[in-house]
Amino acid sequence: MSLTHFDEQGQAHMVDVSGKSVTDRVATAEGCVVMAPETLDYVLQGTAKKGDVLGIARVAGIMAAKKTSDLIPLCHPLPITKVALDLTPDAELPGVRISATVKTSGQTGVEMEALTAVSAAALTVYDMLKAVEKSMRIEGIRVTLKDGGKSGRYEAD
Amino acid sequence: MSLTHFDEQGQAHMVDVSGKSVTDRVATAEGCVVMAPETLDYVLQGTAKKGDVLGIARVAGIMAAKKTSDLIPLCHPLPITKVALDLTPDAELPGVRISATVKTSGQTGVEMEALTAVSAAALTVYDMLKAVEKSMRIEGIRVTLKDGGKSGRYEAD
Amino acid sequence: MSLTHFDEQGQAHMVDVSGKSVTDRVATAEGCVVMAPETLDYVLQGTAKKGDVLGIARVAGIMAAKKTSDLIPLCHPLPITKVALDLTPDAELPGVRISATVKTSGQTGVEMEALTAVSAAALTVYDMLKAVEKSMRIEGIRVTLKDGGKSGRYEAD
Amino acid sequence: MSLTHFDEQGQAHMVDVSGKSVTDRVATAEGCVVMAPETLDYVLQGTAKKGDVLGIARVAGIMAAKKTSDLIPLCHPLPITKVALDLTPDAELPGVRISATVKTSGQTGVEMEALTAVSAAALTVYDMLKAVEKSMRIEGIRVTLKDGGKSGRYEAD
Amino acid sequence: MSLTHFDEQGQAHMVDVSGKSVTDRVATAEGCVVMAPETLDYVLQGTAKKGDVLGIARVAGIMAAKKTSDLIPLCHPLPITKVALDLTPDAELPGVRISATVKTSGQTGVEMEALTAVSAAALTVYDMLKAVEKSMRIEGIRVTLKDGGKSGRYEAD
Amino acid sequence: MSLTHFDEQGQAHMVDVSGKSVTDRVATAEGCVVMAPETLDYVLQGTAKKGDVLGIARVAGIMAAKKTSDLIPLCHPLPITKVALDLTPDAELPGVRISATVKTSGQTGVEMEALTAVSAAALTVYDMLKAVEKSMRIEGIRVTLKDGGKSGRYEAD
Repeated sequence: MSLTHFDEQGQAHMVDVSGKSVTDRVATAEGCVVMAPETLDYVLQGTAKKGDVLGIARVAGIMAAKKTSDLIPLCHPLPITKVALDLTPDAELPGVRISATVKTSGQTGVEMEALTAVSAAALTVYDMLKAVEKSMRIEGIRVTLKDGGKSGRYEAD
Repeated sequence: MSLTHFDEQGQAHMVDVSGKSVTDRVATAEGCVVMAPETLDYVLQGTAKKGDVLGIARVAGIMAAKKTSDLIPLCHPLPITKVALDLTPDAELPGVRISATVKTSGQTGVEMEALTAVSAAALTVYDMLKAVEKSMRIEGIRVTLKDGGKSGRYEAD
Repeated sequence: MSLTHFDEQGQAHMVDVSGKSVTDRVATAEGCVVMAPETLDYVLQGTAKKGDVLGIARVAGIMAAKKTSDLIPLCHPLPITKVALDLTPDAELPGVRISATVKTSGQTGVEMEALTAVSAAALTVYDMLKAVEKSMRIEGIRVTLKDGGKSGRYEAD
Repeated sequence: MSLTHFDEQGQAHMVDVSGKSVTDRVATAEGCVVMAPETLDYVLQGTAKKGDVLGIARVAGIMAAKKTSDLIPLCHPLPITKVALDLTPDAELPGVRISATVKTSGQTGVEMEALTAVSAAALTVYDMLKAVEKSMRIEGIRVTLKDGGKSGRYEAD
Repeated sequence: MSLTHFDEQGQAHMVDVSGKSVTDRVATAEGCVVMAPETLDYVLQGTAKKGDVLGIARVAGIMAAKKTSDLIPLCHPLPITKVALDLTPDAELPGVRISATVKTSGQTGVEMEALTAVSAAALTVYDMLKAVEKSMRIEGIRVTLKDGGKSGRYEAD
Repeated sequence: MSLTHFDEQGQAHMVDVSGKSVTDRVATAEGCVVMAPETLDYVLQGTAKKGDVLGIARVAGIMAAKKTSDLIPLCHPLPITKVALDLTPDAELPGVRISATVKTSGQTGVEMEALTAVSAAALTVYDMLKAVEKSMRIEGIRVTLKDGGKSGRYEAD
């Protein structure tokens, strides 16, 4: 198997997908921001009353999904038909769990869009809480589901 | 302590930094992409001969650092004066370790720029290798150094 | 009726339009910039000889229509197939009347694209004339026509 | 007085501000979205429980302020140091009143940034409510305050 | 024959292509950067060992192709399905020859995307070598092939 | 002499300019679009009556100058203080001559901004005339003047 993003000379290119059929495609990705329990308290207060950390991170994730092909050099531009993000505070982590689902009708998959949405939402959570904790970590960003297209369904364990 | 990105009513705003002095600021962030040993082999071959996975991810990280304020809703636009990324294959991980250093002379710090550079480089590594492995994970994105500005020097353990 | 941009928990998302059929869609929006008669004189001279205020505002509107999904958080990216703007000096207003028509073949309507084109053209008119009058106002931006798609034809009174 | 955005031949250019001094500048703009009382009810419910129309429009306004020089052809890029938006439901209008305040330390004013923030927030309000009412109108977008720089303080009546 | 980008009143618009059929389209463009033989030596060393001038210029060209409709005012946004660039050092020039091939399935051609890719790659070559030679020139940017769509095949002599 | 855009390992980075002083900088670049005499007639008619090819290309050049650091991977973002373009029909060429002047107060030069402005204006001229001639060529893009900063004044022969 070879890396599709390179030609026989090893030169990067945006893969020719013009021969692939347009099918409905979906991908889901997840990740989390790990923080101190006291930092998570700000998030929990926030959704209730102070400032809506998770709401703003959700918007950032949706908007970033639309910029994926602008950020990832060899990614195809795609007409995204759905983006949804879930941001859930988790006291056991402690931190915020993020998942993103993206759909398109197109010639390539949308796992990069889902991963980019999760990454941007995680970065935004970091940005909004960094005044109270600098040692937060973004962890476990991965694809959990990919379906549609010739390569078939993929589900993470 | 309160979250600076919200006013007293809990409404999000871009913080007023006009009263802060312009100082030299630097931040370093790190993260990694964890993959199967066979996937890492593609990276190692690549730098030698086939396709330059790490070189393209480095460019993606540099370009993403310049887009930080476009991706993170409440981030100030900043005249970045330096961006450098290191991408190192690590057989023990196994995977690729990424670190990014960003500098500016400005009124706010550049840790979001460093984190964004690492995230975009990691996403690009994923994109270029996803044809051979879908189960890669992006892990451990965090700030390791921040200096300049009133809040002083921060170094991760 | 509920707001389509929110799910049952009230969380914002980009609506799933993957089940909607691709149809030809058109939308027209209008608005105006109200100014002093002496300011309008600059526009009228401009088209004749000095500087082409309306021509530049027209280009700004066309280019902004293409950025709509980048500006409006929950807007779907769409392959626009036509954008046309009319900018007409109106001595009775006094000011400049603007209308924009946008077409696509897609799964959602283009009224946001038409409204964005009008808004950007109006802002550009303001920018180019603000040296002579700061009290200009942008007024009456609204959708006048929307057609194509399941929800049927809409025409403003 | 002549239009600064054109040279003597009437050709558009981005004005040379290199000779102007860097000073603190501020501008405030306002506008509103007029809607049916039943539409406004969705906004009022939203802030309480369903979906946060105003919160998302606020984020859209902040992010659009940062894109001003990308939207308005002859606008200078500026390092914005503050953006804040107020979105207030007003039953008498009925509709939503929007105001935006932008600051910079730079060589030109930020009234275009404030007007762009108001416009984008208004467009986003329209987008989120258009499923229940297409006849909303964006009205009264204007500069209410401008200060800093050689041309002095401007306040609307 | 008239210029399609203007209507009967001579006002610019983005041409209505909604009636055109979606067909596979391809375009190839070429150009070069002419430099001193000593400057070319840096490129030749670079690909071997020092810094990969051509690899970075290739990425810049691919990414720029995706931004074409953002740069060229009346260009339609298109879902690009392939971008490939060739950058070849040529000692006879002396300099670097660049060619770009772009494909889409759409309603308009992709010659502007191919020309934009060549231009951005050439500018990047200039940027990376300007420390050693300021007198480089970008020459001979033109379309060499265009196919698909109603106007038929075009090949340069 | 070595290429500043690479470190000692030959890895690309955005050069650290934080130690350089902020000075006034200016650069001028030029280029041309060569076409058939009949094609040039469209431009000449256009400026008089039909469609303003040169006016739109001028706006495209100004807006592209502001996007330079987004297009050229290792370019620093700069607060541009002036952009002016001259587009002159030349019957002897035959074609259109383009020159662009850009200024900033910053830590790096603006020759890339001037070259990008010329390139985008040339591409726009091509786009607007391609319906009548596909064989146009963009030629002779180069820096003619660069001043300010430590490396001193450069003037092309």
